[in-house]
Amino acid sequence: MSKKQNQQVYTSKSIREMEHRFRTNFVNSLSGFKGLQLVGTISKSGITNLAPVSSIVHFGVNPSLIGMVLRPDTVPRQTLQNIMDNQCWTLNNVLEEFYPQAHQCAARYDEYTSEFRATSLTETYNSLKAPYVEQSSIQIGLQLTERIDVKANGTHILIGEVIEVFMPQNIVEVDGTINIQESGSLVVAGLNSYHKTSKISRLSYPKVGKGLEVL
Amino acid sequence: MSKKQNQQVYTSKSIREMEHRFRTNFVNSLSGFKGLQLVGTISKSGITNLAPVSSIVHFGVNPSLIGMVLRPDTVPRQTLQNIMDNQCWTLNNVLEEFYPQAHQCAARYDEYTSEFRATSLTETYNSLKAPYVEQSSIQIGLQLTERIDVKANGTHILIGEVIEVFMPQNIVEVDGTINIQESGSLVVAGLNSYHKTSKISRLSYPKVGKGLEVL
Repeated sequence: MSKKQNQQVYTSKSIREMEHRFRTNFVNSLSGFKGLQLVGTISKSGITNLAPVSSIVHFGVNPSLIGMVLRPDTVPRQTLQNIMDNQCWTLNNVLEEFYPQAHQCAARYDEYTSEFRATSLTETYNSLKAPYVEQSSIQIGLQLTERIDVKANGTHILIGEVIEVFMPQNIVEVDGTINIQESGSLVVAGLNSYHKTSKISRLSYPKVGKGLEVL
Repeated sequence: MSKKQNQQVYTSKSIREMEHRFRTNFVNSLSGFKGLQLVGTISKSGITNLAPVSSIVHFGVNPSLIGMVLRPDTVPRQTLQNIMDNQCWTLNNVLEEFYPQAHQCAARYDEYTSEFRATSLTETYNSLKAPYVEQSSIQIGLQLTERIDVKANGTHILIGEVIEVFMPQNIVEVDGTINIQESGSLVVAGLNSYHKTSKISRLSYPKVGKGLEVL
């Protein structure tokens, strides 16, 4: 039995009654650590857009699907509009060297301003009509497979198939696992807390009645 | 311009042609670091279930919604069945003290075996018909709001409203932000790589034309 010091109970009622800004911070951090990606898109008139997104989810291996949640109240409309126009987007991991620039991309720039230019991040292109972040060490190009609009609050879920990936070969281990810590990817908590990682271990495939091994 | 040493390109074709197990590891780690939670549920016949899930997404503040993705090919059917039966589940963060037990919960136990008993984790209850993990420092109770079945590959998205939260009061900062690192939550990469975090900084709210401050 662990001793629960200073244990506090929050209910749906007490959360609803929190002061607006306090509640926003509380609920945004409640779900815990999240991976962080810069989502790169381009408008019909050629203006690039870069939005930090921490709601990236693995959706499947065959085909390789990655999804993300775009909340209507927080994400600039341009990201969704650009994806609907071009049916594609890029994911670019965020490194310690430029995380303040990634954070700044969440400021409400108007639709005529590119976050690349505003933050001095560098755009590069390959086969998709969407810009990659040159400074990122893992760059993923996705093509739209499915868009889902959530009834509960008008949030959008966009699922894309992995079309192309650019990363250093030496971070891919012999069994196919990508060494994410070695890539330099940061994690985020809540709206603004940035963290590095330190590896504890990799564990063997779990089986009933068999002990785990550290790989 | 960063120098891209050993830069490698992977295409949808080359990913599709990877050896099966290699591809599974590759694609599962591609989306980067993820938060990790143990999902607690109970069956109609009273058998508890605990499943590690790394696809937790914040869906909204008002009401407070948290979602998760359950892939049909990897998650035991019991989790989905129990949620549909009881309309609720719990999320419990994973700490360094018991991450091997959390990992072991992914083994394919039959429906008559509780992962709590199999891994010696302790179940506790409050107002919901779903067990919490006593050893976790942040325990969240959710009630089902919306279930979405993804056309692309039969994956399920479950969105729930936060009904109750249990955690130490001293990890909630004055502005409402929960100090996730202080809670001891780990992050995971791919299927089996566990990591601690070390904080870099918290940054101020980003505004157009204004510099960022470290909070």
